[in-house]
Amino acid sequence: MNDQSPAPEVVFDTKWFQIVARRVAGDPHPHYVINCTDFVAVVAVTTQGELLLVRQFRAARGSTSLEVPSGHVEIGETPEEAARKELLEETGYVADKFELLRTLAPCIGRFSNQMWCYLALDARPTTDPDYRFEAGVEPVKYPGSLRTLLAEPEFCSSLSHTALLAALAQGRIGFDGPQKPG
Amino acid sequence: MNDQSPAPEVVFDTKWFQIVARRVAGDPHPHYVINCTDFVAVVAVTTQGELLLVRQFRAARGSTSLEVPSGHVEIGETPEEAARKELLEETGYVADKFELLRTLAPCIGRFSNQMWCYLALDARPTTDPDYRFEAGVEPVKYPGSLRTLLAEPEFCSSLSHTALLAALAQGRIGFDGPQKPG
Repeated sequence: MNDQSPAPEVVFDTKWFQIVARRVAGDPHPHYVINCTDFVAVVAVTTQGELLLVRQFRAARGSTSLEVPSGHVEIGETPEEAARKELLEETGYVADKFELLRTLAPCIGRFSNQMWCYLALDARPTTDPDYRFEAGVEPVKYPGSLRTLLAEPEFCSSLSHTALLAALAQGRIGFDGPQKPG
Repeated sequence: MNDQSPAPEVVFDTKWFQIVARRVAGDPHPHYVINCTDFVAVVAVTTQGELLLVRQFRAARGSTSLEVPSGHVEIGETPEEAARKELLEETGYVADKFELLRTLAPCIGRFSNQMWCYLALDARPTTDPDYRFEAGVEPVKYPGSLRTLLAEPEFCSSLSHTALLAALAQGRIGFDGPQKPG
């Protein structure tokens, strides 16, 4: 590793992410930036007005968490294709329309990637007879209101909160829903 | 690096964070977890009802972003002490009461740390004559509503959105505020 290099230099590399050392003018220290593919999160509401969630083990946390369906965009996929794929793989549900609510920086201090937040209303179970649930992911139709969900200790991922806020701020779901109120 | 080691092993280390390889039962691949100190974010509203924000350059993004005051908890600090320090250093404002809104996982896929979201109402400029603004951080009193702010492309940090949602969901600020409506 050459600390004097002006160009970003890969200092750690895995199949999931890569760390590069970036030089910022006036700072003697390198800034370590983590590069990985973009991320999608889906606010999906069934035709019955239930929010679709997933429960999974998170190694970084050492326990399970309850989240909106989400995942990384793979090479060659569009973000919308990734959102459709994650919703289906993680919950067994499909929807006709995936609306992009907004894009954000999921972890602006370190990660260079973007997060794409989608809304999928009128989600329904797939009719594909070959569909198999993704191992290690438990689909959950959340029975309560968004206000109740946001207070649940297990609903603890900042990225899931952000996706819900995008739908809330645009009036597409309500705190007392998920259904859009009145 | 010994890939057979059952205990978490440090595989990359900096003064800001450390990467450990964790083994999860049934998975042949290590899970790389990033350890760093906890993070605080402050929803601060002035006595005039303005939301206090900061604009700063983000190396991972390669541009500036507009965020709520935030930062890492240093060794020996409590999260509330860190929140008070970040608000003062980044904006020049103080407040009597810092209310913990909730804790979350800021980046659950990779980071093991927690994010502590605080609410500081009735914030006022410090009267300390020795106060100096933090270099590289521009304090901003946001003039618009929260709904307007949430749609700003520059207000792009998921963590800032999450902190605002914690205050919104608990009815402490409103989309048409920041002041609590009615």
